[in-house]
Amino acid sequence: MNAAIRAVVRTAIFKNIKVSAVYQGYEGLIEDSIEEFDARSVANIIQRGGTILRTARCQEFYTPEGRKKAYETLERRGIDGLVVIGGDGSFKGAATLYEEYKIPVIGIPATIDNDIYGTDVSIGFNTAINIALEAIDRLRDTAASHDRLFLAEVMGRNAGHIALYVGVAVGAEAILVPEVESDLDKVVQNIILAKDKGKNSSIIVVAEGAFKGGAFAVEKELKERSGYEVRTSILGHIQRGGSPVTRDRVLGSRLGFAAVKGLLAGRSGVMVGADKRDVVFVPLKEVFEKERNFDWELYEASKILTV
Amino acid sequence: MNAAIRAVVRTAIFKNIKVSAVYQGYEGLIEDSIEEFDARSVANIIQRGGTILRTARCQEFYTPEGRKKAYETLERRGIDGLVVIGGDGSFKGAATLYEEYKIPVIGIPATIDNDIYGTDVSIGFNTAINIALEAIDRLRDTAASHDRLFLAEVMGRNAGHIALYVGVAVGAEAILVPEVESDLDKVVQNIILAKDKGKNSSIIVVAEGAFKGGAFAVEKELKERSGYEVRTSILGHIQRGGSPVTRDRVLGSRLGFAAVKGLLAGRSGVMVGADKRDVVFVPLKEVFEKERNFDWELYEASKILTV
Amino acid sequence: MNAAIRAVVRTAIFKNIKVSAVYQGYEGLIEDSIEEFDARSVANIIQRGGTILRTARCQEFYTPEGRKKAYETLERRGIDGLVVIGGDGSFKGAATLYEEYKIPVIGIPATIDNDIYGTDVSIGFNTAINIALEAIDRLRDTAASHDRLFLAEVMGRNAGHIALYVGVAVGAEAILVPEVESDLDKVVQNIILAKDKGKNSSIIVVAEGAFKGGAFAVEKELKERSGYEVRTSILGHIQRGGSPVTRDRVLGSRLGFAAVKGLLAGRSGVMVGADKRDVVFVPLKEVFEKERNFDWELYEASKILTV
Amino acid sequence: MNAAIRAVVRTAIFKNIKVSAVYQGYEGLIEDSIEEFDARSVANIIQRGGTILRTARCQEFYTPEGRKKAYETLERRGIDGLVVIGGDGSFKGAATLYEEYKIPVIGIPATIDNDIYGTDVSIGFNTAINIALEAIDRLRDTAASHDRLFLAEVMGRNAGHIALYVGVAVGAEAILVPEVESDLDKVVQNIILAKDKGKNSSIIVVAEGAFKGGAFAVEKELKERSGYEVRTSILGHIQRGGSPVTRDRVLGSRLGFAAVKGLLAGRSGVMVGADKRDVVFVPLKEVFEKERNFDWELYEASKILTV
Repeated sequence: MNAAIRAVVRTAIFKNIKVSAVYQGYEGLIEDSIEEFDARSVANIIQRGGTILRTARCQEFYTPEGRKKAYETLERRGIDGLVVIGGDGSFKGAATLYEEYKIPVIGIPATIDNDIYGTDVSIGFNTAINIALEAIDRLRDTAASHDRLFLAEVMGRNAGHIALYVGVAVGAEAILVPEVESDLDKVVQNIILAKDKGKNSSIIVVAEGAFKGGAFAVEKELKERSGYEVRTSILGHIQRGGSPVTRDRVLGSRLGFAAVKGLLAGRSGVMVGADKRDVVFVPLKEVFEKERNFDWELYEASKILTV
Repeated sequence: MNAAIRAVVRTAIFKNIKVSAVYQGYEGLIEDSIEEFDARSVANIIQRGGTILRTARCQEFYTPEGRKKAYETLERRGIDGLVVIGGDGSFKGAATLYEEYKIPVIGIPATIDNDIYGTDVSIGFNTAINIALEAIDRLRDTAASHDRLFLAEVMGRNAGHIALYVGVAVGAEAILVPEVESDLDKVVQNIILAKDKGKNSSIIVVAEGAFKGGAFAVEKELKERSGYEVRTSILGHIQRGGSPVTRDRVLGSRLGFAAVKGLLAGRSGVMVGADKRDVVFVPLKEVFEKERNFDWELYEASKILTV
Repeated sequence: MNAAIRAVVRTAIFKNIKVSAVYQGYEGLIEDSIEEFDARSVANIIQRGGTILRTARCQEFYTPEGRKKAYETLERRGIDGLVVIGGDGSFKGAATLYEEYKIPVIGIPATIDNDIYGTDVSIGFNTAINIALEAIDRLRDTAASHDRLFLAEVMGRNAGHIALYVGVAVGAEAILVPEVESDLDKVVQNIILAKDKGKNSSIIVVAEGAFKGGAFAVEKELKERSGYEVRTSILGHIQRGGSPVTRDRVLGSRLGFAAVKGLLAGRSGVMVGADKRDVVFVPLKEVFEKERNFDWELYEASKILTV
Repeated sequence: MNAAIRAVVRTAIFKNIKVSAVYQGYEGLIEDSIEEFDARSVANIIQRGGTILRTARCQEFYTPEGRKKAYETLERRGIDGLVVIGGDGSFKGAATLYEEYKIPVIGIPATIDNDIYGTDVSIGFNTAINIALEAIDRLRDTAASHDRLFLAEVMGRNAGHIALYVGVAVGAEAILVPEVESDLDKVVQNIILAKDKGKNSSIIVVAEGAFKGGAFAVEKELKERSGYEVRTSILGHIQRGGSPVTRDRVLGSRLGFAAVKGLLAGRSGVMVGADKRDVVFVPLKEVFEKERNFDWELYEASKILTV
């Protein structure tokens, strides 16, 4: 997230636009917890986890009175446009503000669950999946040494993206996600099958919202149905922090840069996202005859971001 | 790479196809260093760096006689199709083999430089950029403590992708890539400007091929032109190994899975790649009203890969 | 642990002694799950977490009948001495076997809790404290972004060594250990004081055995007494695995080497431990009868350092 | 280092003593680059690499005039005692200042080379050996995939402590240190022997000062004598930075705490070092006149462990 904040601030300054930081989300907008930033204000933050602007839930903003106060703050300070970094909830608020007061807004998707439509990936996802990966790789060591079945619960109340990616990456014996009804009998069958084939340990990755009661409920069910000893590890909040991986820093930089350029180009009521990715088949001849495009846009951005 | 090997082996077995592993690339094909694999042969490899099949340069394969030997090995062993994991060089060999002997081949892009056309990203790139990131984040600590200018040379003889991504992610003051002629006077100007603005240390990321003589040559030039003390760090081979990050393991799994399915569907002479990504603007309304697609194909693959 | 196994095997072979590996602890001794090893058997294991010999609890060994079977296995296979890697429980078993059958035994201390008397440090401790450190550094990021109070539960049912070291290293606002009765009113007071001084987030490190009911019970109490929102993270099993840090690999190497040399020199019924940088031999009886000193001075320091 | 700074500041404040920070070492003392600190000044620094006080070489301090200026600064500011964090060079300066002006000084050993007499371990060593470990573990992956011989040069111009620890921990086939004259013929013999036993790759760890010309000179020699392809990786400055490991943060905390308590108790002209787990006070003169023992036993063990 800090990469996106840095990119917004530095791109704006490069374009000779004043830029102010709002602390603690919409609460800061209502209570005027706002500070004008310069290029140095965002020095040395790209490698830090969390967000230097801090975050908070704000019920008041979801009332007309709250949004009126927020708008008054913006007007008083002469703020002409708003970049909102967050998820669906934040975007709903931004869209309403735009509708009611015509204040231009652009959203930047940032949520480790990666459950936002319209972008291939959200800021935070790539870091979260690697933190979860490292943790579960360690569980695998213990599982193998103790001949045990481990459940690892990862974040994802409504979406199984983290569970799916991490489950594939650790070679989990089963992946339970909210998008698919969990068939624990099938899971037990597979574990028994795996034992027969010589696997002496198993890892099951469970998204928070995959099963009512979470991984502990799954543990209880599996024990009853299989008789095996099961250990559960809830990864929890450690998935949220940590120095961001390259992809997240690049994504934040790229989207922050594009958000400011979008605002300046008169766009509003939109989110800036990264495009989708599929599997494609390309003729080999083309592969080695053509040259891969250099990412010129990112290169241009890179020059601006280090002002 | 091991994730791709594992995916090819397990997908093939799932489809009731026999699968054999060729050691040390085309050399193994010529010298029949080949072993039949079962699902257990690729157990516990997804988290390991490098490749269990080992690699080697093989000049002989680029002669008609070499390819003839290779084809004879394939015929003798009853091998009907070939999945080649590598870069442009490997693909050229594969394409020639396909042309000359009509043996179906599919390529999987794997090179940390990410300089392969036709895929958004190659296996290894995501891991390499994170290893480089961690190393340069550390240099930044030292640079800041000692008020120094650091040059970090990353891989990339012909392509600046690693340098660009990592440079953006560490907030480098300059990024030198082969795609752009290096203007060291400009770099010196920027460093002086940065000092004036209060930056007491700087990092410059240099791709191997950005400047004749590499980072050491850049160091010499910068010292002469600026009078500053400059320290150079060549990241070198440490960028190649290491337990792969989630994205690389998922990409390898996905492409290995797709390669086998492609072969079975009669495709040949192609590489299976991941599609491009751009920045797009999506209406916020759409963002929070529509739901993000779950990656069903990966989900299906995940079930097959843990047999 | 694998470093110690490797050192025992290679030192023995260097001394022209045959060496066999016993799988799954005393269970393997009873059920003859034993394999002769050569130098290559322990290649490429020093960097792996867990233990290649796997572990298991074995009730039978703690009966005279069980030990008789174990002794018969040793005799049948012509095994003249035993190196036991583990904690107090394993050492008790080894000492009894030595008493009853005069089979020479030497213990190597390996337990992440570091609660073994007679050695400065046990194998696994240094790795565990760094895994916990990384996890809690991440919680700190989230705590700071959300203005929250976090509880992190680390391992340590009977000993607070991990909690103390990690608590000092992350700058925890409080460290709860089994060695000291928890005064939660004092903790609440300190948090309020910290808030007054401008700290907007706090981390409290809790050893598993510091408070009846663990960190969740502490969370409940703190919420009731302070009214603050509290988040709890149980680090759990992830602390057990992972590629060992340098110190642990060196320690395992050193102790495995010394254990074999000790056996050859006619020592038995002892544990080989680390004392400063010297190697010392301590009677096993003393090891499991005496208790390791808690580091009171560091504990006092920790309270001052978070003012 | 930041852990030590934090501990000095907070312990002093706890004891109701005013504490000021000197920037850039002795240069800051001469040029009065000094700032009064409170407890908040050192918040959130324990996890950061490098030092918030920055460092610089200062020739002037090693002249009587320079020290006079430094003393005048101290007097003008009413500073009654000095805690110096550094290595032998810094301690020599501190001892001279103490001799000439009777200003009480206490040294805290901080140098990643760990070549300071009178302490078990210096601040920075434990972090450096783990960074080097991770890097060389990665080289091992590549070495194994490519059947290659790798040289890894680690820090250590005059002392082989890092090379020894890391070499043991990665299972290096040879460890070259300044304390032992390098016998490259023996190294070549061992590599050939290792190949015969089935090892297809080798890692040799070289301390900077082990061989005239460093690792590149060793590479040249080995190529000539063995005919093998050799790859060299200079780890360099990346060993200096990075978030410190638990041990380093604890050590810094412990020594900073003890330094202030020592000053208050009237001690001066000493370094505070770690001895086992006790804290000891050693005359500075002894510290820089005596040499730290090389760990010969571990060195002997290392040779046996890689058979």
